[in-house]
Amino acid sequence: MDNFIYLDNAATTKPFAELSKIYEDYSSNFYNPSAVYNPAVNVKVLIEDTRRSICKALGGEQGNIIFTSGATEANNIALSSINLRGKYNLIVSLVEHPAIFNKAKQLQNAGENIIYAPTDNNGTVRLNDIKNLVSDKTAMVSIMHVNNETGAINDIKQICDVIKSINPKTVIHVDGVQAVGKIKVDLQSLGVDMYTISAHKINGPKGIGALWVKKGIKINPIVYGGGQEQGYRSGTENVFGILSLGYCIGKVVAEQEQNYNKIQLIKNAFLQQLTLNNVQFKLNSGNNCSPYIISLSFNNVRGEVLLHNLESHNILISTGSACSSKKPDNRTLKAMGLNDNLIMGSIRISFSAYDNYDVNNIADTIATELKNLQKIIRGNNG
Amino acid sequence: MDNFIYLDNAATTKPFAELSKIYEDYSSNFYNPSAVYNPAVNVKVLIEDTRRSICKALGGEQGNIIFTSGATEANNIALSSINLRGKYNLIVSLVEHPAIFNKAKQLQNAGENIIYAPTDNNGTVRLNDIKNLVSDKTAMVSIMHVNNETGAINDIKQICDVIKSINPKTVIHVDGVQAVGKIKVDLQSLGVDMYTISAHKINGPKGIGALWVKKGIKINPIVYGGGQEQGYRSGTENVFGILSLGYCIGKVVAEQEQNYNKIQLIKNAFLQQLTLNNVQFKLNSGNNCSPYIISLSFNNVRGEVLLHNLESHNILISTGSACSSKKPDNRTLKAMGLNDNLIMGSIRISFSAYDNYDVNNIADTIATELKNLQKIIRGNNG
Repeated sequence: MDNFIYLDNAATTKPFAELSKIYEDYSSNFYNPSAVYNPAVNVKVLIEDTRRSICKALGGEQGNIIFTSGATEANNIALSSINLRGKYNLIVSLVEHPAIFNKAKQLQNAGENIIYAPTDNNGTVRLNDIKNLVSDKTAMVSIMHVNNETGAINDIKQICDVIKSINPKTVIHVDGVQAVGKIKVDLQSLGVDMYTISAHKINGPKGIGALWVKKGIKINPIVYGGGQEQGYRSGTENVFGILSLGYCIGKVVAEQEQNYNKIQLIKNAFLQQLTLNNVQFKLNSGNNCSPYIISLSFNNVRGEVLLHNLESHNILISTGSACSSKKPDNRTLKAMGLNDNLIMGSIRISFSAYDNYDVNNIADTIATELKNLQKIIRGNNG
Repeated sequence: MDNFIYLDNAATTKPFAELSKIYEDYSSNFYNPSAVYNPAVNVKVLIEDTRRSICKALGGEQGNIIFTSGATEANNIALSSINLRGKYNLIVSLVEHPAIFNKAKQLQNAGENIIYAPTDNNGTVRLNDIKNLVSDKTAMVSIMHVNNETGAINDIKQICDVIKSINPKTVIHVDGVQAVGKIKVDLQSLGVDMYTISAHKINGPKGIGALWVKKGIKINPIVYGGGQEQGYRSGTENVFGILSLGYCIGKVVAEQEQNYNKIQLIKNAFLQQLTLNNVQFKLNSGNNCSPYIISLSFNNVRGEVLLHNLESHNILISTGSACSSKKPDNRTLKAMGLNDNLIMGSIRISFSAYDNYDVNNIADTIATELKNLQKIIRGNNG
């Protein structure tokens, strides 16, 4: 990373240096938490302490943490916890991460009733749509807290209030992967029943995440075995991952406010410098967005070509979401009503509060490369 | 570990020191393998190289590796890949790891037909039983390669031959967690269709494993999302885990023969010293066993009490399997025909080839503690 200007932190983040120490500690205290001798029991205690500290950091002491192999598995467990049986429905937004969207599609292919909630042109779910879609047949609503492509923030508290006023039995799941540590997350006041978190988006290792579950909410395991994680997620615990997740959540939540302010300034300065360079762009990230993610569209430019040209300057960005190993389908931008030209010309820039940026240089380089590309296009057309 | 004599390597193992270097490399090259810029593509290439090198190390070039969060998930994917639909059956042995056994129970509770293959008094599945149980209705047989409680080795090649001669369509899954690196594993000559491996049993980190799948064998994902692992296991790849698993498999397979000989000598010397101490024991690990695991039963002694007394000498052993977070149910020893007294008085000692042991001291300490316990029991009874 030292050689790169890394602007793809919504895809993944550089692990905190402190995790090396956690790894070394784990490497000496590698015991199986299910074993009964003291060194192993001590590892089990560390895991339980981490579980509690994560709940506390997120204002979720009225619930429990199930550690999983990542947010994708946590999202899948959430959606597998309802029995639709052809009678009930599941509502997901059109702009959910593939871990929700493709699991919902799988349920739909199996004959279940899935309702897709549209978004406004900022990428947020409208309260009115939720009001119209939720019924006494709605078993679950799953809506992301912060969109991974645009940073659009859903008003989860109001959404929960509306859903519960129509059908108090509806289980509300929220994918909070891009929210934790970026915006304030208080699970109690949000009113959610399940909440997904990930380590590698907050400078933790890949392969660890968690599902927070409110007390009294039933979940179904999708993996059976030795009965770890209270029987909800069997398999020897990923001790290094769990302790790392705990450390990262503690840190990013404690520093959330100051980090937010830092990134807000960076975002504003970057956009200002783009404007000073007379760059014409459409800002797909509306007003109510996490400043960590900027989605921009340019006319008559391929985002992918721009990406590779910026790479030649050691600037790493994304087009759409890198969370999919397939070609980005720009489902989010499509749902927001963008035309194909603007979707093709979209890029995503995502910051980390634990890095520093020469935003003027970044904006200037983008401006230069855009002018070069548009010159070529004008040349081709001329 | 430096202060402990760790004899519970069947539960988990100390990570190789070399993994710290792999972690540091990952920490610098933390990019999301699904991203399209070169540093990320390079990570993707490392993953694909690891996939191929694992196949090669296990003689499985006619198949593919699906990385999972561990052996438990790999076993669950294997058993989820068949559609029994109340018409077909699944055969598992009575002594399978909970990751197979409890998944089979879950299928049985859902109304499916599960057949449990008994074992002989060495804990191995009899060919004759397999011959009698397999039919044209058998969709899958899942039998472990090496038992995690006794080290009993199943003759997988002969079992595969028998199954395929009766029903060539039967898919054969083998849990090889305690076999890889301990005994020779050549997937091509074994004739299996799926094979489960784990990292943390071969000095790798917890939270990573894999399912090897022969070409042409269909599997069903249990987790949906971004389409990673060819769509069979979505979720951002656990890059550190994958590279570590590759390293560990390469090392333990290359050193398998010399390690085996070392451990065979250690096992023999240990048992000889126990005998020299006039310790009366039943060796539950028969002749055809991995020398890495020794299951012993003593009359009129609680294995758990012996375990804690040995812990006061910094010797860490197990009673039965630590892979279950519940109380060990001694399913394996029961299936082998042991009475309750011998089951209660059983311990498991499991070695690592990457540690050195003063076996005389270990055997002498066990003998002393046994005599103390038996003195107490005689006192209580007298």
